[in-house]
Amino acid sequence: MERISNKTVKVGIVGLGYVGLPLAIAFAKSEVTVIGFEKDERKSNAINIGKSYISDIDDDDILRIVKVSKKLSATTDFTAIQECDVVIICVPTPLNKFKEPDLSYIENACIDIGRNMKPGTFISLESTTFPTTTENYIRPIIERESGMILDKDFWLCFSPERIDPGNKTFKTENTPKVLGGLGEEAKNIARGLYGLAIQHLYPVSSPRVAEMVKILENTYRLINISLINELALLAGRMNIDIWEVIDAAATKPYGFQAFYPGPGIGGHCIPLDPFYLEYIAKIYNFDLSMIHTAGAINNLMPYRIMTKISFALNRHKKSLNGSNILFLGIAYKPDINDARESPALLVIEQVERKGAVVHYHDPYIQEVMSENGKRYTSVELSEDIITNADCVVITTNHTCFDIPFIVEKAKLIVDTRNAIKNISIENKTIFKL
Amino acid sequence: MERISNKTVKVGIVGLGYVGLPLAIAFAKSEVTVIGFEKDERKSNAINIGKSYISDIDDDDILRIVKVSKKLSATTDFTAIQECDVVIICVPTPLNKFKEPDLSYIENACIDIGRNMKPGTFISLESTTFPTTTENYIRPIIERESGMILDKDFWLCFSPERIDPGNKTFKTENTPKVLGGLGEEAKNIARGLYGLAIQHLYPVSSPRVAEMVKILENTYRLINISLINELALLAGRMNIDIWEVIDAAATKPYGFQAFYPGPGIGGHCIPLDPFYLEYIAKIYNFDLSMIHTAGAINNLMPYRIMTKISFALNRHKKSLNGSNILFLGIAYKPDINDARESPALLVIEQVERKGAVVHYHDPYIQEVMSENGKRYTSVELSEDIITNADCVVITTNHTCFDIPFIVEKAKLIVDTRNAIKNISIENKTIFKL
Repeated sequence: MERISNKTVKVGIVGLGYVGLPLAIAFAKSEVTVIGFEKDERKSNAINIGKSYISDIDDDDILRIVKVSKKLSATTDFTAIQECDVVIICVPTPLNKFKEPDLSYIENACIDIGRNMKPGTFISLESTTFPTTTENYIRPIIERESGMILDKDFWLCFSPERIDPGNKTFKTENTPKVLGGLGEEAKNIARGLYGLAIQHLYPVSSPRVAEMVKILENTYRLINISLINELALLAGRMNIDIWEVIDAAATKPYGFQAFYPGPGIGGHCIPLDPFYLEYIAKIYNFDLSMIHTAGAINNLMPYRIMTKISFALNRHKKSLNGSNILFLGIAYKPDINDARESPALLVIEQVERKGAVVHYHDPYIQEVMSENGKRYTSVELSEDIITNADCVVITTNHTCFDIPFIVEKAKLIVDTRNAIKNISIENKTIFKL
Repeated sequence: MERISNKTVKVGIVGLGYVGLPLAIAFAKSEVTVIGFEKDERKSNAINIGKSYISDIDDDDILRIVKVSKKLSATTDFTAIQECDVVIICVPTPLNKFKEPDLSYIENACIDIGRNMKPGTFISLESTTFPTTTENYIRPIIERESGMILDKDFWLCFSPERIDPGNKTFKTENTPKVLGGLGEEAKNIARGLYGLAIQHLYPVSSPRVAEMVKILENTYRLINISLINELALLAGRMNIDIWEVIDAAATKPYGFQAFYPGPGIGGHCIPLDPFYLEYIAKIYNFDLSMIHTAGAINNLMPYRIMTKISFALNRHKKSLNGSNILFLGIAYKPDINDARESPALLVIEQVERKGAVVHYHDPYIQEVMSENGKRYTSVELSEDIITNADCVVITTNHTCFDIPFIVEKAKLIVDTRNAIKNISIENKTIFKL
């Protein structure tokens, strides 16, 4: 606590990705010394020469704290954990092929930490996971690997990350942070520590409450995106423009939040987090029917988009098989360079399996690999590439897309994002979701 | 249009309930002459002597426009429709016993209007119903009964009501109003007419879009209440206080809106509207799985609350059978006098069937009838009535309830509304949802 109050505390951050790097920068900017532990050598080297690999972060931000103030350094060597008073875990928590939680990154981080940490270390987990992970999964691994005892030799906390890539208003520093310390001492340390870098703190009674908070936030999004996707499909059949409906509903000044349909859910949070909860619920003999139903809708969306493309081509007496299809946008949301869990890729895979010739253009993503290992490279968005396509599919509404130009040149468009706002449902050449 | 612009237009409003009466007052306050058509003689008489039967409306409001400005009068005589330039339909749209739309109130209103209206009448429907009702259900009835022709002799519009009982900020006048005129002329008239009384108008392209808007708004609420009810039940098993989780999640400054669990959904909108959509979707061979799942969760909630009461009594080695149970609050939400579709009533019916002796107290609802026709009368909330109850169940969190007093006197409490905020999940005498 003393080292926290005089800012001589040394913070280790395990994992310098979308969560860890902004957090490391937030602490370093607050004049706290940060060591970033990152097993991917390309990333740790990039940091040490002041190069960013995340679209929300400028090289300048990194240069200033790495080269000028020298508050941040990155390493692949986990023995340096022993120099740290605090270790914050920001590693991925994906699903495996069977859509079950894959805690192996957390497990490996805990082993590395347990084997190297000094007594008196405060450990905080930021990776999204199901309630009880900190108490029942992290704690035993750390105790086993370190031989130390909770609340005597080390402290534990769960504090969910709330990074929203592309959000210009809310960054790490000014987004309220939920803190779930395990025990009173951990709660006090958590408050002191995070208070150095983050403006608004919101302590809760336990790690499991904090774990549930994050899952509630993202389950809320999953459920609402699924609902609107389902309603979009019905609206299409009823000749109702769902985008017009949403904009009108959004004029209600209370009790409504607008969500928009699309080719499916993407990113590292919404497609995964709710299924962490569904998994642990089974241990409590509890079926989460809302999450299950929402998941089913979203799993089907890429196939429904494929069907829409196929019926659009049908209007021109063409089949998917042999058609030339150009996808615009691979990122899972506008104006970012992240293609994780992007539904566009799933649509591409499916139409390719049906025999279509596929290209994509995304100004932020030069290259991408599908789940079955095939590599795709972004093409330039020339007039030729548009006019040659039998169908152009708008899968991400990057603001830089020149929509009037695309509409003018394309033979046929399937617009899954309402990028073309001034037409309703469909006309001769445009099909909207 | 001329009579609209010089405010000599005469507006008829069919149905002076929670929607029609505030709307009638809004027009009358704008110096438009309004005739209210209300088949319930007690209501039309009440209006004519300046008495309100809705908690959001004062007697004074009615007195001023009925007795002073004389802009509003009520009648049970539908032949006076012939005096009106405009008729607005604000009748109930309930579900029948099989949870199918019951459009009989709309049908009867349309017959009354069709038989009595003069050429040049503008008809607007505000009752929530499934998309296509205005075009495919109202129009043929009016044309058949009147012998007149749409767009030549009369005009149609759907404009969803957005009344939120108990809302102190948003009233009829200052809540943006969606207008779905059928055809260009109807759109222009709708804008002119509603503009007399309502500040913000939002015209959409068709009645079916406007019909869908209202259902989207309320389906959004149904889905999110169902989700949080399901998560509340899981959280209980995991020893997580869902109320604490929701408050923490609500600190997220974007992308989250808080909903709270309870004994089920109530009121005239959320339990009904989504099932109107589910009904029409079947005609399009479309299953709305999210609404269906949400409906199933909410149908079960009263039974789950009964189980919770039973297990609370079990802690005191008592059975439901023969226990004395006091319910606090019958209204479906705090501080209003409306018990329509109130889940409290469903819980009461169930515990009574299991042999419990039931009383209720609600300062706003003196008497209430259950679905099977049994009548209940509110008891005074005396110390005796609380101490004599084997279990007190908080079903509505009216702000006037003296919670510390109730906690002090009650043997056992089941709190379905987080009225008792400072305890987590449960203690010896308090059980929270």
